[in-house]
Amino acid sequence: MKRTVFFISDGTGITAETLGHSLLAQFDTVDFDQITIPYVKDEEKVRDAVSRINKAAMSDDMPPLVFSTVINDDIRVMLSQSKAFMLDIFSSFLKPLEGALGAESSYSVGKSHSIVDDQSYKVRIDSVHYALDNDDGARTRHYDMADVILIGVSRSGKTPTCLYLALQFGIKAANYPLTEDDLDDLNLPKALREHRSKLFGLSIEPERLAAIRTERKPNSRYASINQCESEVRGAEAIFNRFGIPYVNSTHASIEEISTKVIEAAGIKRRLA
Amino acid sequence: MKRTVFFISDGTGITAETLGHSLLAQFDTVDFDQITIPYVKDEEKVRDAVSRINKAAMSDDMPPLVFSTVINDDIRVMLSQSKAFMLDIFSSFLKPLEGALGAESSYSVGKSHSIVDDQSYKVRIDSVHYALDNDDGARTRHYDMADVILIGVSRSGKTPTCLYLALQFGIKAANYPLTEDDLDDLNLPKALREHRSKLFGLSIEPERLAAIRTERKPNSRYASINQCESEVRGAEAIFNRFGIPYVNSTHASIEEISTKVIEAAGIKRRLA
Repeated sequence: MKRTVFFISDGTGITAETLGHSLLAQFDTVDFDQITIPYVKDEEKVRDAVSRINKAAMSDDMPPLVFSTVINDDIRVMLSQSKAFMLDIFSSFLKPLEGALGAESSYSVGKSHSIVDDQSYKVRIDSVHYALDNDDGARTRHYDMADVILIGVSRSGKTPTCLYLALQFGIKAANYPLTEDDLDDLNLPKALREHRSKLFGLSIEPERLAAIRTERKPNSRYASINQCESEVRGAEAIFNRFGIPYVNSTHASIEEISTKVIEAAGIKRRLA
Repeated sequence: MKRTVFFISDGTGITAETLGHSLLAQFDTVDFDQITIPYVKDEEKVRDAVSRINKAAMSDDMPPLVFSTVINDDIRVMLSQSKAFMLDIFSSFLKPLEGALGAESSYSVGKSHSIVDDQSYKVRIDSVHYALDNDDGARTRHYDMADVILIGVSRSGKTPTCLYLALQFGIKAANYPLTEDDLDDLNLPKALREHRSKLFGLSIEPERLAAIRTERKPNSRYASINQCESEVRGAEAIFNRFGIPYVNSTHASIEEISTKVIEAAGIKRRLA
Protein backbone atom coordinates (compact mmCIF):
# COMPACT_ATOMS: atom_id res chain seq x y z
CA MET A 1 0.00 0.00 0.00
CA LYS A 2 1.36 3.44 -0.94
CA ARG A 3 0.32 6.72 0.67
CA THR A 4 1.55 10.23 -0.04
CA VAL A 5 2.55 12.32 2.96
CA PHE A 6 3.12 16.09 3.00
CA PHE A 7 5.04 17.98 5.66
CA ILE A 8 3.83 21.56 5.44
CA SER A 9 5.16 24.49 7.41
CA ASP A 10 5.44 28.25 7.34
CA GLY A 11 9.02 27.69 8.54
CA THR A 12 11.69 25.12 7.70
CA GLY A 13 9.38 22.10 7.99
CA ILE A 14 11.89 20.31 10.20
CA THR A 15 9.53 19.98 13.19
CA ALA A 16 6.80 18.52 10.97
CA GLU A 17 9.29 16.14 9.35
CA THR A 18 10.81 15.02 12.66
CA LEU A 19 7.48 14.25 14.29
CA GLY A 20 6.08 12.79 11.06
CA HIS A 21 9.04 10.46 10.53
CA SER A 22 8.75 9.16 14.11
CA LEU A 23 5.04 8.51 13.72
CA LEU A 24 5.24 6.94 10.26
CA ALA A 25 8.00 4.58 11.50
CA GLN A 26 5.25 2.93 13.57
CA PHE A 27 3.51 1.76 10.37
CA ASP A 28 5.85 -0.66 8.71
CA THR A 29 3.25 -2.19 6.41
CA VAL A 30 2.67 1.07 4.54
CA ASP A 31 4.93 2.56 1.88
CA PHE A 32 5.07 6.35 2.19
CA ASP A 33 5.96 8.86 -0.50
CA GLN A 34 7.14 11.90 1.48
CA ILE A 35 7.11 15.50 0.32
CA THR A 36 8.12 18.59 2.33
CA ILE A 37 6.72 22.01 1.45
CA PRO A 38 8.42 24.65 3.64
CA TYR A 39 7.88 28.40 3.90
CA VAL A 40 4.15 28.29 3.07
CA LYS A 41 3.56 31.88 4.07
CA ASP A 42 1.40 33.48 1.38
CA GLU A 43 -1.67 32.75 -0.67
CA GLU A 44 0.27 31.70 -3.75
CA LYS A 45 2.30 29.11 -1.86
CA VAL A 46 -0.72 27.68 -0.05
CA ARG A 47 -2.66 27.44 -3.33
CA ASP A 48 0.25 25.58 -4.85
CA ALA A 49 0.42 23.24 -1.84
CA VAL A 50 -3.32 22.54 -2.00
CA SER A 51 -3.09 21.75 -5.68
CA ARG A 52 -0.20 19.30 -5.10
CA ILE A 53 -2.17 17.64 -2.28
CA ASN A 54 -5.28 17.30 -4.45
CA LYS A 55 -3.26 15.88 -7.34
CA ALA A 56 -1.80 13.23 -5.02
CA ALA A 57 -5.28 12.44 -3.69
CA MET A 58 -6.41 11.84 -7.26
CA SER A 59 -3.48 9.64 -8.28
CA ASP A 60 -3.39 7.65 -5.00
CA ASP A 61 -7.18 7.44 -4.92
CA MET A 62 -6.75 8.00 -1.18
CA PRO A 63 -6.45 11.17 0.89
CA PRO A 64 -2.78 12.12 1.46
CA LEU A 65 -1.65 12.71 5.02
CA VAL A 66 -0.65 16.27 5.88
CA PHE A 67 1.50 17.01 8.92
CA SER A 68 1.23 20.77 9.36
CA THR A 69 2.98 23.19 11.68
CA VAL A 70 1.47 26.25 9.98
CA ILE A 71 0.57 28.95 12.48
CA ASN A 72 -1.37 31.48 10.41
CA ASP A 73 -5.13 30.95 10.66
CA ASP A 74 -6.00 31.93 7.09
CA ILE A 75 -3.43 29.54 5.69
CA ARG A 76 -4.63 26.74 7.95
CA VAL A 77 -8.21 27.24 6.78
CA MET A 78 -7.11 27.08 3.14
CA LEU A 79 -5.07 23.92 3.78
CA SER A 80 -7.98 22.28 5.56
CA GLN A 81 -10.04 22.62 2.39
CA SER A 82 -7.67 20.30 0.50
CA LYS A 83 -8.51 16.63 0.03
CA ALA A 84 -6.11 15.60 2.81
CA PHE A 85 -6.23 13.93 6.17
CA MET A 86 -4.82 16.80 8.26
CA LEU A 87 -2.70 16.41 11.37
CA ASP A 88 -2.50 19.95 12.66
CA ILE A 89 0.40 19.65 15.08
CA PHE A 90 0.48 23.10 16.64
CA SER A 91 -3.25 23.52 17.10
CA SER A 92 -3.43 20.10 18.81
CA PHE A 93 -1.03 21.18 21.52
CA LEU A 94 -1.17 24.97 21.81
CA LYS A 95 -4.62 25.20 23.36
CA PRO A 96 -3.82 22.69 26.13
CA LEU A 97 -0.46 24.43 26.65
CA GLU A 98 -2.14 27.81 27.00
CA GLY A 99 -4.37 26.34 29.66
CA ALA A 100 -1.49 24.73 31.55
CA LEU A 101 0.66 27.88 31.39
CA GLY A 102 -2.12 30.36 31.92
CA ALA A 103 -0.57 32.41 29.11
CA GLU A 104 -1.55 33.26 25.57
CA SER A 105 0.63 31.91 22.78
CA SER A 106 1.73 34.16 19.97
CA TYR A 107 -0.26 31.73 17.84
CA SER A 108 -3.38 33.15 19.49
CA VAL A 109 -2.25 36.72 19.16
CA GLY A 110 -1.48 36.12 15.51
CA LYS A 111 2.24 36.52 15.20
CA SER A 112 4.73 33.83 14.41
CA HIS A 113 8.11 33.30 15.97
CA SER A 114 11.32 32.55 14.30
CA ILE A 115 13.71 30.08 15.85
CA VAL A 116 16.60 32.39 15.02
CA ASP A 117 18.70 33.55 17.87
CA ASP A 118 22.12 35.11 17.31
CA GLN A 119 23.52 33.68 20.52
CA SER A 120 22.65 30.08 19.76
CA TYR A 121 23.83 30.55 16.15
CA LYS A 122 27.21 31.56 17.53
CA VAL A 123 27.33 28.65 19.98
CA ARG A 124 26.61 26.17 17.19
CA ILE A 125 29.04 27.68 14.70
CA ASP A 126 31.77 27.84 17.32
CA SER A 127 31.12 24.21 18.19
CA VAL A 128 31.21 23.15 14.53
CA HIS A 129 34.54 24.90 14.01
CA TYR A 130 35.81 23.41 17.25
CA ALA A 131 34.88 19.92 16.02
CA LEU A 132 36.57 20.55 12.67
CA ASP A 133 39.74 22.01 14.19
CA ASN A 134 40.00 19.20 16.71
CA ASP A 135 39.06 16.32 14.43
CA ASP A 136 41.08 13.13 14.24
CA GLY A 137 43.66 14.20 16.79
CA ALA A 138 44.72 17.12 14.59
CA ARG A 139 45.38 19.29 17.62
CA THR A 140 45.38 18.43 21.25
CA ARG A 141 46.23 21.73 22.89
CA HIS A 142 42.61 22.92 23.01
CA TYR A 143 41.32 19.90 24.89
CA ASP A 144 40.77 22.01 28.00
CA MET A 145 37.89 23.67 26.09
CA ALA A 146 36.28 20.37 25.08
CA ASP A 147 33.00 19.20 26.60
CA VAL A 148 33.92 15.68 25.55
CA ILE A 149 36.75 13.92 23.68
CA LEU A 150 35.65 10.88 21.69
CA ILE A 151 38.20 8.14 21.21
CA GLY A 152 38.07 4.99 19.11
CA VAL A 153 39.56 3.23 16.11
CA SER A 154 39.44 4.71 12.62
CA ARG A 155 35.86 4.77 11.19
CA SER A 156 34.11 3.97 14.43
CA GLY A 157 31.86 7.01 13.93
CA LYS A 158 33.80 9.68 15.84
CA THR A 159 33.69 12.53 13.30
CA PRO A 160 29.98 12.46 12.40
CA THR A 161 29.11 12.15 16.10
CA CYS A 162 31.24 15.20 16.99
CA LEU A 163 29.60 17.22 14.22
CA TYR A 164 26.11 16.17 15.24
CA LEU A 165 26.84 17.07 18.88
CA ALA A 166 27.97 20.51 17.67
CA LEU A 167 25.08 21.21 15.29
CA GLN A 168 22.22 19.75 17.29
CA PHE A 169 23.30 20.54 20.83
CA GLY A 170 26.06 23.16 20.62
CA ILE A 171 28.46 20.79 22.38
CA LYS A 172 32.22 21.12 21.82
CA ALA A 173 33.46 17.63 20.96
CA ALA A 174 36.99 16.75 19.93
CA ASN A 175 38.03 13.32 18.72
CA TYR A 176 41.22 11.33 18.80
CA PRO A 177 41.96 8.13 16.90
CA LEU A 178 43.48 5.17 18.71
CA THR A 179 46.36 3.99 16.53
CA GLU A 180 48.03 0.62 16.31
CA ASP A 181 50.79 1.74 18.68
CA ASP A 182 48.27 2.67 21.37
CA LEU A 183 46.35 -0.53 20.76
CA ASP A 184 49.42 -2.74 20.91
CA ASP A 185 50.64 -1.65 24.28
CA LEU A 186 47.13 -0.92 25.66
CA ASN A 187 48.20 2.50 26.73
CA LEU A 188 46.41 5.79 26.76
CA PRO A 189 48.11 8.26 24.38
CA LYS A 190 49.98 10.93 26.28
CA ALA A 191 47.83 13.79 24.94
CA LEU A 192 44.76 12.18 26.51
CA ARG A 193 46.11 11.33 29.95
CA GLU A 194 45.41 14.68 31.59
CA HIS A 195 41.84 14.73 30.19
CA ARG A 196 40.71 11.35 31.51
CA SER A 197 37.39 12.69 32.81
CA LYS A 198 36.41 14.00 29.36
CA LEU A 199 37.16 10.81 27.45
CA PHE A 200 34.39 8.78 25.91
CA GLY A 201 34.88 5.68 23.80
CA LEU A 202 33.14 4.49 20.64
CA SER A 203 33.28 0.81 19.88
CA ILE A 204 31.85 -1.10 16.94
CA GLU A 205 31.44 -4.72 15.86
CA PRO A 206 34.50 -5.86 13.86
CA GLU A 207 32.32 -7.16 10.97
CA ARG A 208 30.59 -3.81 10.61
CA LEU A 209 33.91 -1.95 10.84
CA ALA A 210 35.40 -4.18 8.12
CA ALA A 211 32.40 -3.46 5.87
CA ILE A 212 32.74 0.31 6.39
CA ARG A 213 36.50 0.25 5.79
CA THR A 214 36.11 -1.97 2.73
CA GLU A 215 34.00 0.77 1.10
CA ARG A 216 36.93 3.09 1.58
CA LYS A 217 39.91 0.81 0.87
CA PRO A 218 38.81 -2.52 -0.59
CA ASN A 219 41.07 -5.54 -0.02
CA SER A 220 43.43 -3.62 2.26
CA ARG A 221 44.97 -4.82 5.49
CA TYR A 222 43.17 -1.81 7.08
CA ALA A 223 39.80 -3.29 6.06
CA SER A 224 40.56 -6.94 6.82
CA ILE A 225 38.47 -8.66 9.45
CA ASN A 226 41.58 -9.75 11.36
CA GLN A 227 42.86 -6.20 11.60
CA CYS A 228 39.43 -4.86 12.61
CA GLU A 229 39.00 -7.55 15.27
CA SER A 230 42.40 -6.86 16.76
CA GLU A 231 41.88 -3.06 16.80
CA VAL A 232 38.43 -3.29 18.36
CA ARG A 233 39.66 -5.72 21.00
CA GLY A 234 42.54 -3.37 21.81
CA ALA A 235 40.28 -0.32 22.00
CA GLU A 236 37.83 -2.02 24.36
CA ALA A 237 40.71 -3.22 26.51
CA ILE A 238 41.91 0.39 26.82
CA PHE A 239 38.39 1.60 27.69
CA ASN A 240 38.08 -1.07 30.37
CA ARG A 241 41.60 -0.64 31.73
CA PHE A 242 41.22 3.13 32.23
CA GLY A 243 37.54 3.09 33.22
CA ILE A 244 36.48 5.06 30.15
CA PRO A 245 32.74 4.82 29.46
CA TYR A 246 31.90 3.73 25.92
CA VAL A 247 29.03 2.87 23.63
CA ASN A 248 28.84 0.47 20.73
CA SER A 249 27.98 2.37 17.56
CA THR A 250 27.01 -0.69 15.51
CA HIS A 251 23.44 -0.42 14.23
CA ALA A 252 22.96 2.85 16.10
CA SER A 253 21.95 6.06 14.36
CA ILE A 254 24.07 9.19 14.77
CA GLU A 255 21.26 10.58 16.96
CA GLU A 256 21.40 7.52 19.18
CA ILE A 257 25.19 7.54 19.52
CA SER A 258 25.16 11.29 20.27
CA THR A 259 22.41 11.17 22.87
CA LYS A 260 24.00 8.14 24.54
CA VAL A 261 27.28 10.03 24.78
CA ILE A 262 25.50 13.02 26.33
CA GLU A 263 23.64 10.85 28.79
CA ALA A 264 26.50 8.59 29.81
CA ALA A 265 29.04 11.42 30.03
CA GLY A 266 26.57 13.72 31.78
CA ILE A 267 27.22 16.63 29.39
CA LYS A 268 25.04 19.71 29.44
CA ARG A 269 23.30 20.69 26.20
CA ARG A 270 24.32 24.24 25.33
CA LEU A 271 21.27 24.94 23.18
CA ALA A 272 17.84 25.03 24.77
CA MET B 1 7.39 33.16 35.49
CA LYS B 2 9.49 30.01 35.45
CA ARG B 3 8.25 26.54 34.48
CA THR B 4 10.14 23.28 34.31
CA VAL B 5 9.73 21.24 31.15
CA PHE B 6 10.72 17.60 30.67
CA PHE B 7 11.24 15.89 27.32
CA ILE B 8 10.84 12.18 27.99
CA SER B 9 11.34 9.39 25.51
CA ASP B 10 12.14 5.71 25.25
CA GLY B 11 14.48 6.71 22.40
CA THR B 12 16.80 9.66 21.84
CA GLY B 13 14.28 12.32 22.91
CA ILE B 14 15.01 14.36 19.78
CA THR B 15 11.43 14.24 18.47
CA ALA B 16 10.06 15.38 21.83
CA GLU B 17 12.68 18.16 22.03
CA THR B 18 12.10 19.36 18.46
CA LEU B 19 8.34 19.59 18.82
CA GLY B 20 8.61 20.95 22.34
CA HIS B 21 11.05 23.71 21.38
CA SER B 22 8.78 24.82 18.52
CA LEU B 23 5.76 24.94 20.80
CA LEU B 24 7.50 26.66 23.71
CA ALA B 25 8.85 29.33 21.34
CA GLN B 26 5.24 30.50 21.05
CA PHE B 27 5.25 31.53 24.73
CA ASP B 28 7.74 34.32 25.04
CA THR B 29 6.52 35.54 28.41
CA VAL B 30 7.45 32.32 30.16
CA ASP B 31 10.93 31.26 31.22
CA PHE B 32 11.43 27.53 30.73
CA ASP B 33 13.92 25.27 32.48
CA GLN B 34 14.32 22.36 30.05
CA ILE B 35 15.41 18.83 30.92
CA THR B 36 15.65 15.85 28.56
CA ILE B 37 15.41 12.30 29.88
CA PRO B 38 16.08 9.85 27.03
CA TYR B 39 16.01 6.04 26.95
CA VAL B 40 13.28 5.67 29.58
CA LYS B 41 12.75 1.99 28.89
CA ASP B 42 12.55 0.23 32.23
CA GLU B 43 10.92 0.59 35.62
CA GLU B 44 14.00 2.02 37.29
CA LYS B 45 14.37 4.79 34.72
CA VAL B 46 10.69 5.72 34.79
CA ARG B 47 10.70 5.80 38.60
CA ASP B 48 13.69 8.11 38.48
CA ALA B 49 11.94 10.33 35.91
CA VAL B 50 8.76 10.49 38.01
CA SER B 51 10.75 11.46 41.07
CA ARG B 52 12.55 14.25 39.16
CA ILE B 53 9.19 15.51 37.86
CA ASN B 54 7.64 15.49 41.32
CA LYS B 55 10.65 17.29 42.81
CA ALA B 56 10.31 20.04 40.18
CA ALA B 57 6.55 20.25 40.88
CA MET B 58 7.35 20.84 44.52
CA SER B 59 10.04 23.48 44.01
CA ASP B 60 8.15 25.33 41.21
CA ASP B 61 4.88 25.01 43.12
CA MET B 62 3.37 24.36 39.67
CA PRO B 63 3.04 21.19 37.60
CA PRO B 64 5.97 20.76 35.19
CA LEU B 65 5.17 20.18 31.53
CA VAL B 66 6.08 16.79 30.14
CA PHE B 67 6.44 16.22 26.39
CA SER B 68 6.50 12.45 26.01
CA THR B 69 7.12 10.20 23.03
CA VAL B 70 7.16 7.05 25.14
CA ILE B 71 5.49 4.13 23.34
CA ASN B 72 5.27 1.45 26.02
CA ASP B 73 1.88 1.43 27.77
CA ASP B 74 3.12 0.49 31.25
CA ILE B 75 5.70 3.28 31.21
CA ARG B 76 3.12 5.79 30.00
CA VAL B 77 0.78 4.82 32.84
CA MET B 78 3.57 5.28 35.39
CA LEU B 79 4.51 8.66 33.90
CA SER B 80 0.90 9.81 33.95
CA GLN B 81 0.85 9.31 37.72
CA SER B 82 3.48 12.01 38.20
CA LYS B 83 2.51 15.54 39.18
CA ALA B 84 2.96 16.79 35.60
CA PHE B 85 0.89 18.28 32.86
CA MET B 86 1.40 15.54 30.24
CA LEU B 87 1.55 16.12 26.49
CA ASP B 88 1.53 12.60 25.14
CA ILE B 89 2.70 13.21 21.58
CA PHE B 90 2.47 9.75 20.08
CA SER B 91 -0.87 8.79 21.58
CA SER B 92 -2.39 12.07 20.35
CA PHE B 93 -1.59 11.24 16.74
CA LEU B 94 -1.33 7.47 16.43
CA LYS B 95 -5.04 6.67 16.89
CA PRO B 96 -6.13 9.16 14.19
CA LEU B 97 -3.32 7.91 11.93
CA GLU B 98 -4.43 4.30 12.38
CA GLY B 99 -7.90 5.33 11.29
CA ALA B 100 -6.66 7.25 8.26
CA LEU B 101 -4.31 4.48 7.16
CA GLY B 102 -6.59 1.57 8.03
CA ALA B 103 -3.55 -0.10 9.56
CA GLU B 104 -2.41 -0.93 13.08
CA SER B 105 0.66 0.82 14.39
CA SER B 106 3.36 -1.16 16.13
CA TYR B 107 2.43 1.04 19.11
CA SER B 108 -0.86 -0.86 19.23
CA VAL B 109 0.75 -4.22 18.80
CA GLY B 110 3.20 -3.40 21.56
CA LYS B 111 6.57 -3.22 19.90
CA SER B 112 8.72 -0.21 19.39
CA HIS B 113 10.67 0.70 16.32
CA SER B 114 14.17 1.94 16.11
CA ILE B 115 15.02 4.67 13.63
CA VAL B 116 18.24 2.85 12.76
CA ASP B 117 18.69 1.88 9.17
CA ASP B 118 22.07 0.84 7.82
CA GLN B 119 21.41 2.33 4.40
CA SER B 120 20.57 5.80 5.65
CA TYR B 121 23.48 5.64 8.11
CA LYS B 122 25.77 5.05 5.15
CA VAL B 123 24.20 7.87 3.11
CA ARG B 124 24.69 10.31 5.97
CA ILE B 125 28.24 9.26 6.79
CA ASP B 126 29.21 9.38 3.14
CA SER B 127 27.71 12.86 2.88
CA VAL B 128 29.53 14.05 6.00
CA HIS B 129 32.85 12.81 4.66
CA TYR B 130 32.04 14.34 1.28
CA ALA B 131 31.43 17.71 2.95
CA LEU B 132 34.67 17.46 4.91
CA ASP B 133 36.76 16.39 1.92
CA ASN B 134 35.27 19.11 -0.26
CA ASP B 135 35.26 21.91 2.29
CA ASP B 136 36.62 25.34 1.55
CA GLY B 137 37.64 24.56 -2.03
CA ALA B 138 40.08 21.90 -0.80
CA ARG B 139 39.38 19.72 -3.82
CA THR B 140 37.37 20.44 -6.91
CA ARG B 141 37.71 17.23 -8.87
CA HIS B 142 34.75 15.53 -7.14
CA TYR B 143 32.27 18.28 -7.98
CA ASP B 144 30.48 15.98 -10.43
CA MET B 145 29.28 14.01 -7.37
CA ALA B 146 27.98 17.10 -5.56
CA ASP B 147 24.28 17.75 -5.11
CA VAL B 148 25.10 21.41 -4.55
CA ILE B 149 28.21 23.61 -4.34
CA LEU B 150 27.88 26.52 -1.94
CA ILE B 151 29.90 29.62 -2.74
CA GLY B 152 30.42 32.80 -0.76
CA VAL B 153 32.98 34.87 1.10
CA SER B 154 34.88 33.53 4.11
CA ARG B 155 32.60 33.03 7.18
CA SER B 156 29.32 33.45 5.33
CA GLY B 157 28.12 30.13 6.79
CA LYS B 158 29.15 27.68 4.05
CA THR B 159 30.78 24.96 6.17
CA PRO B 160 28.08 24.55 8.87
CA THR B 161 25.41 24.59 6.16
CA CYS B 162 27.17 21.84 4.18
CA LEU B 163 27.50 19.72 7.32
CA TYR B 164 23.87 20.24 8.28
CA LEU B 165 22.73 19.31 4.77
CA ALA B 166 24.80 16.11 5.08
CA LEU B 167 23.68 15.10 8.57
CA GLN B 168 20.02 16.06 8.40
CA PHE B 169 19.22 15.30 4.78
CA GLY B 170 22.04 13.09 3.43
CA ILE B 171 22.82 15.71 0.79
CA LYS B 172 26.34 15.92 -0.69
CA ALA B 173 27.33 19.57 -0.45
CA ALA B 174 30.73 20.99 -1.38
CA ASN B 175 31.77 24.56 -0.73
CA TYR B 176 34.16 26.99 -2.37
CA PRO B 177 35.31 30.32 -0.97
CA LEU B 178 35.24 33.39 -3.21
CA THR B 179 38.63 35.03 -2.77
CA GLU B 180 39.70 38.62 -3.31
CA ASP B 181 40.97 37.80 -6.81
CA ASP B 182 37.58 36.44 -7.85
CA LEU B 183 35.81 39.35 -6.22
CA ASP B 184 38.02 41.97 -7.83
CA ASP B 185 37.47 40.94 -11.41
CA LEU B 186 33.91 39.67 -10.82
CA ASN B 187 34.70 36.38 -12.42
CA LEU B 188 33.65 32.88 -11.65
CA PRO B 189 36.65 30.76 -10.58
CA LYS B 190 37.65 28.30 -13.27
CA ALA B 191 36.89 25.24 -11.14
CA LEU B 192 33.27 26.34 -10.83
CA ARG B 193 32.51 27.22 -14.43
CA GLU B 194 31.54 23.77 -15.61
CA HIS B 195 29.27 23.27 -12.58
CA ARG B 196 27.14 26.39 -12.97
CA SER B 197 23.85 24.53 -12.43
CA LYS B 198 24.99 23.24 -9.02
CA LEU B 199 26.19 26.58 -7.65
CA PHE B 200 24.33 28.26 -4.84
CA GLY B 201 25.40 31.50 -3.15
CA LEU B 202 25.40 32.55 0.49
CA SER B 203 25.39 36.25 1.21
CA ILE B 204 25.43 38.06 4.53
CA GLU B 205 25.11 41.61 5.81
CA PRO B 206 28.57 43.25 6.01
CA GLU B 207 28.01 44.33 9.64
CA ARG B 208 27.22 40.79 10.71
CA LEU B 209 30.18 39.43 8.74
CA ALA B 210 32.51 41.94 10.39
CA ALA B 211 31.22 40.90 13.82
CA ILE B 212 31.77 37.19 13.06
CA ARG B 213 35.26 37.80 11.64
CA THR B 214 36.19 40.05 14.56
CA GLU B 215 35.62 37.11 16.93
CA ARG B 216 38.17 35.20 14.94
CA LYS B 217 40.75 37.89 14.08
CA PRO B 218 40.12 41.09 16.04
CA ASN B 219 41.33 44.37 14.51
CA SER B 220 42.40 42.73 11.26
CA ARG B 221 41.88 44.03 7.73
CA TYR B 222 39.97 40.74 7.20
CA ALA B 223 37.42 41.75 9.85
CA SER B 224 37.16 45.44 8.95
CA ILE B 225 33.79 46.75 7.85
CA ASN B 226 35.29 48.19 4.65
CA GLN B 227 36.75 44.86 3.65
CA CYS B 228 33.52 43.01 4.51
CA GLU B 229 31.42 45.49 2.55
CA SER B 230 33.61 45.24 -0.50
CA GLU B 231 33.70 41.42 -0.43
CA VAL B 232 29.94 41.07 0.02
CA ARG B 233 29.29 43.55 -2.79
CA GLY B 234 31.65 41.59 -5.06
CA ALA B 235 30.06 38.25 -4.17
CA GLU B 236 26.54 39.48 -4.87
CA ALA B 237 27.70 41.00 -8.15
CA ILE B 238 29.05 37.58 -9.17
CA PHE B 239 25.81 35.86 -8.14
CA ASN B 240 23.79 38.35 -10.18
CA ARG B 241 26.11 38.37 -13.18
CA PHE B 242 26.08 34.58 -13.55
CA GLY B 243 22.45 34.03 -12.52
CA ILE B 244 23.41 32.07 -9.39
CA PRO B 245 20.57 31.80 -6.87
CA TYR B 246 21.52 32.92 -3.37
CA VAL B 247 20.16 33.48 0.11
CA ASN B 248 21.14 35.90 2.79
CA SER B 249 22.31 34.05 5.88
CA THR B 250 22.13 37.04 8.25
CA HIS B 251 19.83 36.30 11.18
CA ALA B 252 18.91 32.93 9.70
CA SER B 253 19.40 29.68 11.59
CA ILE B 254 21.41 26.87 10.01
CA GLU B 255 18.11 25.00 9.54
CA GLU B 256 16.66 27.97 7.68
CA ILE B 257 19.68 28.47 5.44
CA SER B 258 19.79 24.74 4.67
CA THR B 259 16.11 24.37 3.85
CA LYS B 260 16.18 27.52 1.72
CA VAL B 261 19.10 26.10 -0.25
CA ILE B 262 17.20 22.82 -0.75
CA GLU B 263 14.06 24.62 -1.82
CA ALA B 264 15.63 27.21 -4.09
CA ALA B 265 18.06 24.77 -5.69
CA GLY B 266 15.41 22.07 -6.03
CA ILE B 267 17.59 19.38 -4.40
CA LYS B 268 16.15 16.03 -3.44
CA ARG B 269 16.48 14.94 0.19
CA ARG B 270 18.27 11.60 0.27
CA LEU B 271 16.91 10.56 3.65
CA ALA B 272 13.20 9.91 4.09
